[in-house]
Amino acid sequence: MSGRLCVVGLGPGAAAQMTPQALDALAACDELYGYGPYLDRVPVRAGQARFASDNREELDRASAALERAVAGAKVGVVSGGDAGVFAMAAAVCEAMEKGPDPFRTVDFEVIPGITAMLAVAARIGAPLGHDFCALSLSDNLKPWPLVEKRLTAAAEAGFVIALYNPISRARPWQLGAAFELLRQSLPGSVPVIFGRAAGRADERITLATLADADATIADMATCVLIGSAQTRMVERPGLPPLVYSPRSAP
Amino acid sequence: MSGRLCVVGLGPGAAAQMTPQALDALAACDELYGYGPYLDRVPVRAGQARFASDNREELDRASAALERAVAGAKVGVVSGGDAGVFAMAAAVCEAMEKGPDPFRTVDFEVIPGITAMLAVAARIGAPLGHDFCALSLSDNLKPWPLVEKRLTAAAEAGFVIALYNPISRARPWQLGAAFELLRQSLPGSVPVIFGRAAGRADERITLATLADADATIADMATCVLIGSAQTRMVERPGLPPLVYSPRSAP
Repeated sequence: MSGRLCVVGLGPGAAAQMTPQALDALAACDELYGYGPYLDRVPVRAGQARFASDNREELDRASAALERAVAGAKVGVVSGGDAGVFAMAAAVCEAMEKGPDPFRTVDFEVIPGITAMLAVAARIGAPLGHDFCALSLSDNLKPWPLVEKRLTAAAEAGFVIALYNPISRARPWQLGAAFELLRQSLPGSVPVIFGRAAGRADERITLATLADADATIADMATCVLIGSAQTRMVERPGLPPLVYSPRSAP
Repeated sequence: MSGRLCVVGLGPGAAAQMTPQALDALAACDELYGYGPYLDRVPVRAGQARFASDNREELDRASAALERAVAGAKVGVVSGGDAGVFAMAAAVCEAMEKGPDPFRTVDFEVIPGITAMLAVAARIGAPLGHDFCALSLSDNLKPWPLVEKRLTAAAEAGFVIALYNPISRARPWQLGAAFELLRQSLPGSVPVIFGRAAGRADERITLATLADADATIADMATCVLIGSAQTRMVERPGLPPLVYSPRSAP
């Protein structure tokens, strides 16, 4: 008998931003797999086993979870944000495609969540109110020249850009290089938002311009939003400025 | 005394996909503004006034809501999906920028939600598992040549593409023209997903390839996802195929 596997998006971190659907799906699992800090966000249920693994072992984790589902267990794999955006759903699909036949018979479900860029955007206005793209800045899984090509294409076509995985100890220079590259295509006045831990107690939203954006502000928990040439800053008396991308474009 | 205004993302439609934060924010409002079918999703609270308006009157609705907030009311503006993605948050920010001074003193908050592309993607695997863009196909607010430029730039740079507002009675030909254009940049085998009303009772997820994608399948409630050349279809015995975009790119 085959069990089932659900990949669950926990949202950006605040409990109030996790959906009832995600909570119900997690409560129905016998076993949970995921990166430790994400597992820590899931309410504890007696009798439910938890298997934490490092953030870089996604394919191994996916295969381990699928094996347990094939053996009949109700398995949950957790992701921060949305399960399908630079997260575990793609790793599980990849393991299903490349793994043994029974992996493709598992009852499989993905539960969406609020992805980081939406949570960050909400805290400063509506920077994603017009056409935008989402790009992982990690060059672990793709060559850096491809990242550069996509950044330039997006900027020149007028997309607002959301950068995931902007920086890490092993990738210290990529975000600075991305800013440097984008300064060739975009005005220096374009707003840049560093959104760290949006919606959580340790949230820090920092607004800069492309000309003065300092990559060292970002860490692994940061999603960086870079406006288009159309993106506006709205000054407010006694309040932080808002940033939005107008619905219309010339 | 100035009131406050929150723009609330209701998620894709299923009650279980609306966050507790959104429900709490809505319950705290004296007055709700929005497109009628979205207002219908909000649990009724005695004494709360509701003002439905047509989907195309976004800036007027934003100004009306801001005026009430300036007068001291607790006002909620509702959006389907996420409030910041092709939705009301940008319209309210625009009204704040262009309107009278008091509009910029209002206590303003945006509550994020699960946007349509995430809900659709979850129903078929992980098509947004790699770099992607989101683009409104409406040419009400931008010239069609700009849409074409963005479609081609995104396809040639290897972004998966999510199309919002793909078709309407007033815009019957745009989606077909977009497919036609994308066939010049992408292989015909690229998966195309028509995601209608994802997560709702009347959900309909249709999988096609770019070569045979038929634009007439889409309606106003559809979000269309178009894979990149790397996006994979995974056949499963006795189950619908999965679609995912691998985390790595060559």
